[in-house]
Amino acid sequence: MSGGAPKFDAAFRAQLETLFRWRRDVRRFKPDPITPDVLDDLLRLAALAPSVGLSQPWRFVSVDDPERRAALRRNFETANAEALAACGEERKALYAKLKLAGLDEAPRHLALFAEPQPEQGHGLGRRTMPETVAYSAVMAAHTLWLAARAHGIGVGWVSILDPAAVAAALDVPSGWSFIGYFCLGYPQAEDDTPDLERRGWERRRQDIKVALLQR
Amino acid sequence: MSGGAPKFDAAFRAQLETLFRWRRDVRRFKPDPITPDVLDDLLRLAALAPSVGLSQPWRFVSVDDPERRAALRRNFETANAEALAACGEERKALYAKLKLAGLDEAPRHLALFAEPQPEQGHGLGRRTMPETVAYSAVMAAHTLWLAARAHGIGVGWVSILDPAAVAAALDVPSGWSFIGYFCLGYPQAEDDTPDLERRGWERRRQDIKVALLQR
Repeated sequence: MSGGAPKFDAAFRAQLETLFRWRRDVRRFKPDPITPDVLDDLLRLAALAPSVGLSQPWRFVSVDDPERRAALRRNFETANAEALAACGEERKALYAKLKLAGLDEAPRHLALFAEPQPEQGHGLGRRTMPETVAYSAVMAAHTLWLAARAHGIGVGWVSILDPAAVAAALDVPSGWSFIGYFCLGYPQAEDDTPDLERRGWERRRQDIKVALLQR
Repeated sequence: MSGGAPKFDAAFRAQLETLFRWRRDVRRFKPDPITPDVLDDLLRLAALAPSVGLSQPWRFVSVDDPERRAALRRNFETANAEALAACGEERKALYAKLKLAGLDEAPRHLALFAEPQPEQGHGLGRRTMPETVAYSAVMAAHTLWLAARAHGIGVGWVSILDPAAVAAALDVPSGWSFIGYFCLGYPQAEDDTPDLERRGWERRRQDIKVALLQR
């Protein structure tokens, strides 16, 4: 369908910027459930993400079994303890105080994998850059993240995990590549400043002149 | 700032879905320029993307020099000829007819790199998954892509390139990791169906039951 292309106005662009600004990595959730129809909606929108060669290589896994969730939590705790041990002395106390995942409270857990050599797409666009398959899955996660925030739902991306152990704990098809683990739920509080910034770990830099090289 | 958290309503969510649906990989551009203030705005919004440990590891490069652009085009032509040669016989003719980049027409070219071991973020979140640095840059690209579409600007992601040769042609700081090359411009036509689907290369699958495993 062409001809009926939508026009986005300044009011929509302002709201879109507000969405970008208030999308946060959420680690503190209320117990309120996410209904299946809303989750279905988020996954449906995630499938609108760009993908290399139209391969749609994202593979979402809904993790609901208490034993599998417990295995994921142990995985996180081990990796997080190792990260704390590897922390420089001057940052150790601050690191220990950070809350880096909401695995206990989040009502919904989604794991995301990529199928590294998807049949769909017939290999187009990824011959010299096979990592674009993983990148496609990342854009699906980001789409879901934004869609969730537009529903008032917070998402937290957990990356402090041993990827091989995640794949084993979830018994996914062999070869699937782990991208990230996502906690979803309604946030206890909302903010437009990242938690890591409010707690003094790091601050955002906004100076695009730093980021933009001219060639 | 908290307390003044925005509420997004159904009307905004419908427009956001329209944005996701009409974001396309664009390869046919009008010659109309993108003004510097709009490009600055897109880069400013891209910096609102999530990043591992708040590391903001994306490094955008504006490619304007005709010789560098020509080097990129040769890079693409070589990689694309190799991809065509590697194509199965039954798809070769179709592949040859596809337009896979708008390098000649697009008024703006942006290359995107990631700084693999950014100081910013102090290493948080990427000890077991260093690839999350690249994933952060990908989400900045996706943010820019959506923001561009909200301005009526099309983006095309070119991945049919030898990454090492891109880094050499653009003379970027050593160690930067190439993520993608982006053509930006006002599209000749708009569509909510991907070019690859309209030309019979691949079709999107929307059945989330296929994509969602239960564990």
